[in-house]
Amino acid sequence: MKEKQISKAVIKRLPRYRRYLKDLQKKGIEKISSKDLSKLIGYTASQIRQDLNNFGGFGQQGYGYSVANLHDEIGGILGLDKEYKMAIVGYGRLGRAIASYIANNEPKFNIVGIFDVKQIIQDVEDVEFKDAQIMTCKSLSSFVKSEHIDIAVITVPAEKAQLVADTVADAGIKGIWNLTAVDLDLPEGIAVENVHMSDSLHALAYYMQGTEN
Amino acid sequence: MKEKQISKAVIKRLPRYRRYLKDLQKKGIEKISSKDLSKLIGYTASQIRQDLNNFGGFGQQGYGYSVANLHDEIGGILGLDKEYKMAIVGYGRLGRAIASYIANNEPKFNIVGIFDVKQIIQDVEDVEFKDAQIMTCKSLSSFVKSEHIDIAVITVPAEKAQLVADTVADAGIKGIWNLTAVDLDLPEGIAVENVHMSDSLHALAYYMQGTEN
Repeated sequence: MKEKQISKAVIKRLPRYRRYLKDLQKKGIEKISSKDLSKLIGYTASQIRQDLNNFGGFGQQGYGYSVANLHDEIGGILGLDKEYKMAIVGYGRLGRAIASYIANNEPKFNIVGIFDVKQIIQDVEDVEFKDAQIMTCKSLSSFVKSEHIDIAVITVPAEKAQLVADTVADAGIKGIWNLTAVDLDLPEGIAVENVHMSDSLHALAYYMQGTEN
Repeated sequence: MKEKQISKAVIKRLPRYRRYLKDLQKKGIEKISSKDLSKLIGYTASQIRQDLNNFGGFGQQGYGYSVANLHDEIGGILGLDKEYKMAIVGYGRLGRAIASYIANNEPKFNIVGIFDVKQIIQDVEDVEFKDAQIMTCKSLSSFVKSEHIDIAVITVPAEKAQLVADTVADAGIKGIWNLTAVDLDLPEGIAVENVHMSDSLHALAYYMQGTEN
């Protein structure tokens, strides 16, 4: 199913397609044309057809797309038909917010370990992730190895981020979800996805300039 | 300085340039060639020159870019030489994490109001934002109007997001930083920037497929 050279821009759009298709499913809508999908999502119909053709295309001429089928197919392309074991590294405010978000919204991503410095984890009263162990960062490397952790979610302060990344990379991590303010330097073969909050806020500031007066 | 038709892709890269330039400044580096900047950031040198030429270009042939100057120029282009008044709408875990992040890292963005439902705000003990008022969402519209709020940061549950967006839009908001799982339908002229956590996580799942076995 998956082909080698799908552009990053297309990949970035796939979760968005899936999100809209999920909403349509909830509303009981069974099929949709690329034109109606276009109105909803805001990409052109030709863009949508082109994107989905990267993966073989799922629409039928004159019928449109089956909402459920397309949702599941995109999920499969993204790898959301599998389960992932996650470690949260950094359990301050952002770490807790992200952990809570994942636990409540992302059933395929299982938080099995939570790591922080001693002072923080001693302070954690509300362990709502019953299956997760809470440990200091000293155990991070051995835990990633022994538990075959797939994804490390890094929410430590910026100056610690590379050290954590090196540690999990050496321990055989497959993917890193980086929510710190810095970019990470990692060996080939480890997937990384960044959420740079400030970059997004600064882009907003730019867009606002057109709105003034 | 600002031109009309800068592509969204370029805008998205500017905060990243600025972030790297800030790091260079901290390290006491005064000038840098597009080639060295390219090694650091990972864009090609020609991409960098092309991006910065959109705004008139700041480099001198054979000298490179002045780090401080380019940092400040990009800040100016992004509108980071101004101050912004912000309201946080939704003060659950994510709202608190974001508010704390902004207060500690973004001096130009001033949180002046925090909004949530009654049960939540009664429960807020740690008001670390001394200049911010904490109110129920009933006061949101009048507060945005009377305080001339520039940006609403929306972190309410997905099903409430559009209602909040409509409220602040009607009250004359200029920009919305949307951290909910849904896209917002807004009138022209209001700047919106989304941080869709799940989209990012799902893209990571896709990239990890290449890393398996």
